[in-house]
Amino acid sequence: MAANGIGDEFDLIAKYFAPLAAGAPGALGLTDDAAMVDVPAGQRLVAAVDTVVAGIHFLGDDPPGDIARKIIRVNLSDLAAMGARPLGLLLALVLPRDVTGDWMERFAAGLKADIDEFHAPLIGGDTVAGGGPLTLTLTALGTVPANQVLTRAGALAGDAIYVTGTIGDGALGLGVAKGTLKGLDQAHQNYLLGRYRRPRPRLDFGVRLLGHAHAAIDVSDGLIADLGHICTCSGVGARLAAQAVPLSDAAQAALGLGEGKLADLLTGGDDYELLFTAPPEDDTALRAMASDLAVDVTRIGSITDGGGLEVEDGDGSESRIGKGGYRHFR
Amino acid sequence: MAANGIGDEFDLIAKYFAPLAAGAPGALGLTDDAAMVDVPAGQRLVAAVDTVVAGIHFLGDDPPGDIARKIIRVNLSDLAAMGARPLGLLLALVLPRDVTGDWMERFAAGLKADIDEFHAPLIGGDTVAGGGPLTLTLTALGTVPANQVLTRAGALAGDAIYVTGTIGDGALGLGVAKGTLKGLDQAHQNYLLGRYRRPRPRLDFGVRLLGHAHAAIDVSDGLIADLGHICTCSGVGARLAAQAVPLSDAAQAALGLGEGKLADLLTGGDDYELLFTAPPEDDTALRAMASDLAVDVTRIGSITDGGGLEVEDGDGSESRIGKGGYRHFR
Repeated sequence: MAANGIGDEFDLIAKYFAPLAAGAPGALGLTDDAAMVDVPAGQRLVAAVDTVVAGIHFLGDDPPGDIARKIIRVNLSDLAAMGARPLGLLLALVLPRDVTGDWMERFAAGLKADIDEFHAPLIGGDTVAGGGPLTLTLTALGTVPANQVLTRAGALAGDAIYVTGTIGDGALGLGVAKGTLKGLDQAHQNYLLGRYRRPRPRLDFGVRLLGHAHAAIDVSDGLIADLGHICTCSGVGARLAAQAVPLSDAAQAALGLGEGKLADLLTGGDDYELLFTAPPEDDTALRAMASDLAVDVTRIGSITDGGGLEVEDGDGSESRIGKGGYRHFR
Repeated sequence: MAANGIGDEFDLIAKYFAPLAAGAPGALGLTDDAAMVDVPAGQRLVAAVDTVVAGIHFLGDDPPGDIARKIIRVNLSDLAAMGARPLGLLLALVLPRDVTGDWMERFAAGLKADIDEFHAPLIGGDTVAGGGPLTLTLTALGTVPANQVLTRAGALAGDAIYVTGTIGDGALGLGVAKGTLKGLDQAHQNYLLGRYRRPRPRLDFGVRLLGHAHAAIDVSDGLIADLGHICTCSGVGARLAAQAVPLSDAAQAALGLGEGKLADLLTGGDDYELLFTAPPEDDTALRAMASDLAVDVTRIGSITDGGGLEVEDGDGSESRIGKGGYRHFR
């Protein structure tokens, strides 16, 4: 399993990965068959897994540190959508033959930055060299209080629909990364690229949603598709006010320049914001929580008792976006 | 992410994977962001991850059901080496573009057979189509009593060294699969192929080792290398009696025909037997446990207080195998 220039699997573990497990005694320095972790009493384990492949989910020449940070953040966003706190990460890597020590160092530095920031130590992993394009599989373990459940499935007719942060930056940031989105000033381009490469999992806000939100999901497939997932799993419909969907200054500037349409932003995905539903009477409490954590929360629609997902876009063409978003869930 | 002929990711989950999660309500039908699992009070979580890639760890035209079963068994073997019982599995798949519905069905049938046999429900996963060679990453979660620890690190000078089952069948079975091992009768070939493709994780015996064994590992890198891992992690040496290492009838027949040498079997790996150390006074108890479970256990050496790993091969050339096995751990 030796890869050129970076040593064998044991060298890789010792040099790059074992230091990332320093905060987790149960990781056993990544030298044992498995890791051991205590799940605190009264807590339930939450587990999510994501695989990303160069050329499909990211560009092969993306900065190595950002590749590392994005897969961590995408997985932690799954935990956030269930109100979970991180417990630890297991990372399986398939490295291409031409990976260099410099690349590994920058990759490991990205891992370390997010492991430290999100208190999610590396507790296990596997490395294979020379098996195809760079492929990363991350399993994120977390915990939720055993008496609390937040899934996609609890939305009730009459619930208000909310989203954190802004929508569409991920899709536009991909355009910047690919060089297809031009004409924006450099600051807006940098902002969008940062949102695409280093989305922020809403972990603290997700924990606070427990006991308030009826259903939640993180926006990965696209706002419309992910709202559809909530509707399907909850057996309800939804009415979304497209004009209410919060956009960043950079996204507004892009739309102003004719770079994409609102519909593209609502279906583009890769936002990793939390989309959730809650009873209208919790509105004040939710806004206070959001203010505490300096997270923007915007109400963008309502859950209905059926009839699928309707999108009002403010100029009468109600079904235009809706039809595009129906593909996955109708 | 649609793959030719097998539908998109949502179709794949509904058709092939959701039925495998039927035994685990916390898997949420594999439709949510993450799975929820209860770790029973007094138990500690154990987590292991393994990635296998077509062309490296298995042959692309291996039976799909056996590919599925082997990665499950290899991971459960990691749990067995820590005395853990399975709790659930998360499977991430990168599928080649030309995967067929028939292949998927046979793959899923293999998963189901082992999920049922080992009581390890599928609780989560991810699927990517068209990203390179078939790549499987399995995360196995298990539990051990919180007051029990069995790792590679506890071996003490004076411990007896034991191994379950027989050694070398995995390496010989690979030869059968590749067509390089000929001359054996068909029954022996079938036996070795089965041992290579469907190794048996020693889960029940692993649980019974808690409180008896000082250190354990499953034999994946090869008996010599894995004994070396125990020595390194425990800070001890070992003296291994090569002639005492148990061989199957098929392996003895292969050696008799001049198909490979004993040294190849001791370094070949892929055995997934348990290699463990225990104080000599536990010998009677260990043999009774083994008899209870119809597992063969053989004493093959002793832990020493230093001096590395010595291999006695019975004809005076003491260091010959040892030197070959030193590569990874000296």
